[in-house]
Amino acid sequence: MKINSCLKSAILFCGLLINNNLQSQSENYLNEDVKKIIKEGLINQDAYKFLYELTSKVGARVSGSPQAEKAVAWGKAKMEEINSDSVWLENMMVPRWVRGKNEIAEVTYPKKIKLNSCALGGSGGTNDKWVSGEVIKVNSVDEAKLLGDKAKGKIIYFSRPFDQSLFEPGRAYGGAVDQRGRGPNEASKLGAVAAIVRSMTHALDDKPHTGATNFEKDVKKIPALAISTIDANNLNLLLEKGKVEIRVKLSAETLPDVESSNVIGQITGSEFPNEIILVGGHLDSWDKGTGTHDDGTGCVQSIEVLNLIKRLGIKPKRTIRAVLFMNEENGLRGGLDYARRRKTLNEKHIAAIESDGGGFTPTGFGVTTDSLKFEKIKSFATLLEQINSSRITKGGGGADIGPLGEFGTALIGLDHDSQRYFDYHHSDNDTIDKVNSRELELGAIAMTILAYAISENGL
Amino acid sequence: MKINSCLKSAILFCGLLINNNLQSQSENYLNEDVKKIIKEGLINQDAYKFLYELTSKVGARVSGSPQAEKAVAWGKAKMEEINSDSVWLENMMVPRWVRGKNEIAEVTYPKKIKLNSCALGGSGGTNDKWVSGEVIKVNSVDEAKLLGDKAKGKIIYFSRPFDQSLFEPGRAYGGAVDQRGRGPNEASKLGAVAAIVRSMTHALDDKPHTGATNFEKDVKKIPALAISTIDANNLNLLLEKGKVEIRVKLSAETLPDVESSNVIGQITGSEFPNEIILVGGHLDSWDKGTGTHDDGTGCVQSIEVLNLIKRLGIKPKRTIRAVLFMNEENGLRGGLDYARRRKTLNEKHIAAIESDGGGFTPTGFGVTTDSLKFEKIKSFATLLEQINSSRITKGGGGADIGPLGEFGTALIGLDHDSQRYFDYHHSDNDTIDKVNSRELELGAIAMTILAYAISENGL
Repeated sequence: MKINSCLKSAILFCGLLINNNLQSQSENYLNEDVKKIIKEGLINQDAYKFLYELTSKVGARVSGSPQAEKAVAWGKAKMEEINSDSVWLENMMVPRWVRGKNEIAEVTYPKKIKLNSCALGGSGGTNDKWVSGEVIKVNSVDEAKLLGDKAKGKIIYFSRPFDQSLFEPGRAYGGAVDQRGRGPNEASKLGAVAAIVRSMTHALDDKPHTGATNFEKDVKKIPALAISTIDANNLNLLLEKGKVEIRVKLSAETLPDVESSNVIGQITGSEFPNEIILVGGHLDSWDKGTGTHDDGTGCVQSIEVLNLIKRLGIKPKRTIRAVLFMNEENGLRGGLDYARRRKTLNEKHIAAIESDGGGFTPTGFGVTTDSLKFEKIKSFATLLEQINSSRITKGGGGADIGPLGEFGTALIGLDHDSQRYFDYHHSDNDTIDKVNSRELELGAIAMTILAYAISENGL
Repeated sequence: MKINSCLKSAILFCGLLINNNLQSQSENYLNEDVKKIIKEGLINQDAYKFLYELTSKVGARVSGSPQAEKAVAWGKAKMEEINSDSVWLENMMVPRWVRGKNEIAEVTYPKKIKLNSCALGGSGGTNDKWVSGEVIKVNSVDEAKLLGDKAKGKIIYFSRPFDQSLFEPGRAYGGAVDQRGRGPNEASKLGAVAAIVRSMTHALDDKPHTGATNFEKDVKKIPALAISTIDANNLNLLLEKGKVEIRVKLSAETLPDVESSNVIGQITGSEFPNEIILVGGHLDSWDKGTGTHDDGTGCVQSIEVLNLIKRLGIKPKRTIRAVLFMNEENGLRGGLDYARRRKTLNEKHIAAIESDGGGFTPTGFGVTTDSLKFEKIKSFATLLEQINSSRITKGGGGADIGPLGEFGTALIGLDHDSQRYFDYHHSDNDTIDKVNSRELELGAIAMTILAYAISENGL
């Protein structure tokens, strides 16, 4: 029995040794591959080349527009060009809002001042006639609701600025954007003839920032505009002195839905092809600027994840799939359709990583999942530490991947140095000259490292 | 004895309670003050206002130039304006190198091509005559040394680019900059008539990047120039095809040393005034661009540390001193003089924090000190975590504070998201439009938090 026990111990010991060896071999190849990924990415910086193509050859691409379809064709061709194992489109109907030729807002009393303005996505038009009204300034949607009958025939101006004191730009945006999203709807319900919103940005400049506004089904789509922050400050001064009247002329209108597509490419897993790790961004953009940081960068980073893996000849154990979602900005139809189809196909997505915060230097990932999976993802931080992107925090994800949450998919958002993001967001400032190629590539590298680590270890 | 023991325990317990209470009170006020510092900084963003003044009213400020003296006057006035407890200048002699009116380099064979070039700081001139020679391309200083007699009468071209594969931009710079610093000296020793260096930058653009080159005492100061990376690539292609000749004309010259100053302001500690925590940057710059990221940002951040503390009415226990060092770029006379005087005055600097990596989003601090002090500084990371600047790593400091190391001062460098730094560094690109006010302010906030935490806890 003593000998037996010794033998057992010896076998156990050898087993542990083999196990440890295997584990250490696994860690070694992963570590080695991560070094290769970083090097290959930073030397070639293909993400920037892709982004230059998308923003110069296609440009802005609002859902349902001919440019959006051009972007779909570009995305599909690019996924094929980088030798994805398979590439396909998945179609769905998307909203079709158009800005039209006229987009004018000007103060008419006490003196004429042209405003730097643009229609919000979803705004109604004015049939190319002028719509005029006295301006009532409010600080919040709740304050607008309290106006009651006083709002009738007026133009409601939502004036609350970003809270500059908040460290996280996203929190400042989140604390102000209800004015854009819900303000015009509430103003319309009160009988206002138009709504104006201070642009959603930290920057003090002369660029208006567009974005979605939502009207309830039976509420009249009144003209809804953003004005630049400089013009908003000037308007505030005018209103302190007395009565102000504004007139607006917008050609904006909502046309019937049209068909569009998500663009999908993947590298099929060598051992567990049915376990999918998604990387994605959204292909649609607003029509100001060229949809560069929002979200051309997320799209090209997702393509670059596949490109890096292919270029290096890495064979991931699980399937890594890149998805360029359509219609994040004003409907989320792409994200919803994608999740609906997964249910029908009974596909298993173990994790989904979205980049939709711009192409800035990555800092880590925000993760929404259970504690056990969170700790496992956190254990990959040592790999990400090599590019200072090891900050793994609870909470996070992305609008497009959100609907996958119901399947238990770990939802992961790439986190960035995002202080400059809202300077560009939804405005003519969102162009390629605001992107640094190395910063953009590092985001793609961080996504590749995390997707690959999950692929090799499972979740 | 039992009672006695109980009593002792009770006394000990009460003592611990009191102690814990004190500690917790201390932590509470520190934590509360840190929140105020973050809020005050982000709301007012005074650092950007200071930087705008320095770069627009003074502009570029090479050591020894009239502009450098204008910068000294500006710095002193600013320190006074923000109500520093005391402000003074400390004088020393600095080198005086001037670029002069002519600065031309052009390919003359096989065809005429004007090069985007500029003299390196310390370069000799050509007496406003043309100096011509055949170009010999080398990849390193060592390769140049091997040329021997072949270098005589030639123009040596140091062509090694940044290693783009390195994550840390500073490492890529460090791996290439010996060509600029030592290359021309070695070329001169071999009898070369001039030296050309590929600009020290990640960017592929048409801007030459200057910087210091050093000649040994008895070595002739030959003309030494940087050419833009695009021109360097073009020159590489020309040289692959055959012989290339270049001619240069430079008015650069080194004049006798002149007097200049470090600018110093401080808030005197309320309990331990003789224990000093230094925050600093360097006031001199190169004469390309307006010395904005290098190192106007470090100067205004240092002033902003005092400004924030004063505005909030905080009374730090230890002295917090801001120093704008003169002559970091081509002599380090300010840093050396500062340390020399401290020895004479027998002043105790417990820590020195330098910002000389640009005004980008801070990530944490690099610290050179003993293990015990390192751990203490690391314990302040929880305070810095509120602005994602809690990465405390071993190693770091700054050129100007380096000489304080011999006194046992903890040397600390502010770390940034530095991927864009060398795109601007020492070139016409280094201007205020490359600075984001929030990013700049966050660096000042991080410095304030760390300086204040050390002030309250000692080291």
